[in-house]
Amino acid sequence: MVVYEWSRVAEEALNPLVSRQMIHTERMTVARLRLRKGALVPEHSHMHEQVTMLIEGQVRFTVGGEVRILSAGELMQIPPHAPHSVEALADSMAIDLFSPVRDDWVRGDDAYLRR
Amino acid sequence: MVVYEWSRVAEEALNPLVSRQMIHTERMTVARLRLRKGALVPEHSHMHEQVTMLIEGQVRFTVGGEVRILSAGELMQIPPHAPHSVEALADSMAIDLFSPVRDDWVRGDDAYLRR
Repeated sequence: MVVYEWSRVAEEALNPLVSRQMIHTERMTVARLRLRKGALVPEHSHMHEQVTMLIEGQVRFTVGGEVRILSAGELMQIPPHAPHSVEALADSMAIDLFSPVRDDWVRGDDAYLRR
Repeated sequence: MVVYEWSRVAEEALNPLVSRQMIHTERMTVARLRLRKGALVPEHSHMHEQVTMLIEGQVRFTVGGEVRILSAGELMQIPPHAPHSVEALADSMAIDLFSPVRDDWVRGDDAYLRR
């Protein structure tokens, strides 16, 4: 058993509009992302299944060419390998769940988030 | 891509003190549980890794004989197969994450929650 507290998990500014906290367990990564209005995460894909839970705000996802606006209280499942991008339409906070663990993030391979 | 909205996901009363909403994806189950003060989930275990994010309230977890109180804003990772039980010390809401999918819940094998 391991206990975490969001207020004690390091928050990293990836660029002036995006910051990230993350927790890696055996089979999952749980990340809390803050996106200021106008933040853009460019199209990327990964072998991990993703579920985004939008806690606050509103974002526009493009997944495999399909556009969908996500509001607070909604969740979106993104299949493994699906190309996706995000634009924050308002200051937003999301919890992103991944399985398996985001080994690319663990080893610091996240340049696409830092533009 | 699949979009869900918590307010449209069926909420099932498992007993007078516990209700559950759940979403099953390819590799994960995301469940939102409401536990009224005094609710007890008896000791059980499963092969799925679990991460509990406590959103509101306070609960007492016993995991492998070790007791830990979890407050809102905290998360707890429970390893696969670890015996665990929960008591709600206040009206609480938790998001429980599992990987892989809780096939036992999918097939309705959740009698331990209904006592």
